[in-house]
Amino acid sequence: MAGAVCLTSGGQDSTTCLYWAKQRFAPLLALSFDYGQRHRIELEAARAVCERAGVPLTVLRLDVLRELGGTALIDPQLPIAASGGRGGLPTTFVPGRNLLFLTVAAAFAYHHEIADLVIGACETDYSGYPDCRQQTMAAMERALQLGMDYPFRIHTPLMHLTKAQTVRLACEVGAYEALAYSHTCYAGTFPPCQQCPACQLRARGFAEAGLPDPLLLRAQGKR
Amino acid sequence: MAGAVCLTSGGQDSTTCLYWAKQRFAPLLALSFDYGQRHRIELEAARAVCERAGVPLTVLRLDVLRELGGTALIDPQLPIAASGGRGGLPTTFVPGRNLLFLTVAAAFAYHHEIADLVIGACETDYSGYPDCRQQTMAAMERALQLGMDYPFRIHTPLMHLTKAQTVRLACEVGAYEALAYSHTCYAGTFPPCQQCPACQLRARGFAEAGLPDPLLLRAQGKR
Repeated sequence: MAGAVCLTSGGQDSTTCLYWAKQRFAPLLALSFDYGQRHRIELEAARAVCERAGVPLTVLRLDVLRELGGTALIDPQLPIAASGGRGGLPTTFVPGRNLLFLTVAAAFAYHHEIADLVIGACETDYSGYPDCRQQTMAAMERALQLGMDYPFRIHTPLMHLTKAQTVRLACEVGAYEALAYSHTCYAGTFPPCQQCPACQLRARGFAEAGLPDPLLLRAQGKR
Repeated sequence: MAGAVCLTSGGQDSTTCLYWAKQRFAPLLALSFDYGQRHRIELEAARAVCERAGVPLTVLRLDVLRELGGTALIDPQLPIAASGGRGGLPTTFVPGRNLLFLTVAAAFAYHHEIADLVIGACETDYSGYPDCRQQTMAAMERALQLGMDYPFRIHTPLMHLTKAQTVRLACEVGAYEALAYSHTCYAGTFPPCQQCPACQLRARGFAEAGLPDPLLLRAQGKR
């Protein structure tokens, strides 16, 4: 069995991908990025999920992401581009974030002589993000192959799944219990706020799949 | 005239590209990366060249490059991949470094509503580096376009030039004098060591072009 590197954010999608990859690749290495996330709970969730899955996690610093999203652009010599509202994205949004994650992941994988990369990119729910679509992933795979002269493959098991289908996939690959330790809430709280768009999207997926969210069960002390 | 972002390392090639771009794009923004370079003189050279060219320089931190090349890979849970010698590259070499630079440069350019990127990649002298070849640049351009849904173009004015031709191009675009402030030497010294492979390659280019190297003239106090 060949090895793989799985991008792991501590969220529902990457947790599901991690277990999907665990069934298919060995060794499996998880990779997270520390870019001064607003909520440290995200990295804590990544650590908890990886520990539970028995997958070694490497956290790489990627401060440039914050610099690109904020202060580094405030150059007194230059007018600040009116990025607010472009494509309806927030001004701190870093375009092509997944391209950056994949490039670093590929360099990391190369060092470990690993060619398979796994990422929870999904077209279905995130149509506003061009770096999540299948076409982008195919182009990036080609660029990585050529740029490092290495036979990389980018696996996106969630690409065409709805949130409900992702919940079902989580059950199939043994990730369901681990979702109790994943993090989704924009408010960065545990228990999750259950009000923000991220919490609501997550809730809808579990409701449609006809299953309780293990994270909420844990919050209620039932797990 | 449309704007551009020029990747600037303080070296001979990117200095030539900067002046090439200055003739073609406005506004022109220079971008360098601080990744704990062994020699700080590289960033100082980038600053000196940009100041002379009158092009505003932004320096972004990219510590992940050092982490990928070194200690971050020393994970006691994992065997270290024997990257020494792979493709004859040093173990601290970060594969696909130009892909990383271009991805960050594209995100930076996007924020400034700039679609043109300029990089001194060259197939002629660096056949060992797959992230310098034309094919890689074309694939990366496509990935950036799709990943950020933006019409990026990657310009590589030096792609098929020899070092002597690059010296001649420097003259044509007005970069010749500025090369006195560029840095090439692996030893990281000024005056340059004139012994290392980088110094020798540079010297050969000027010799073939039939011109003195302004950097050496400056070192001799003649400039």
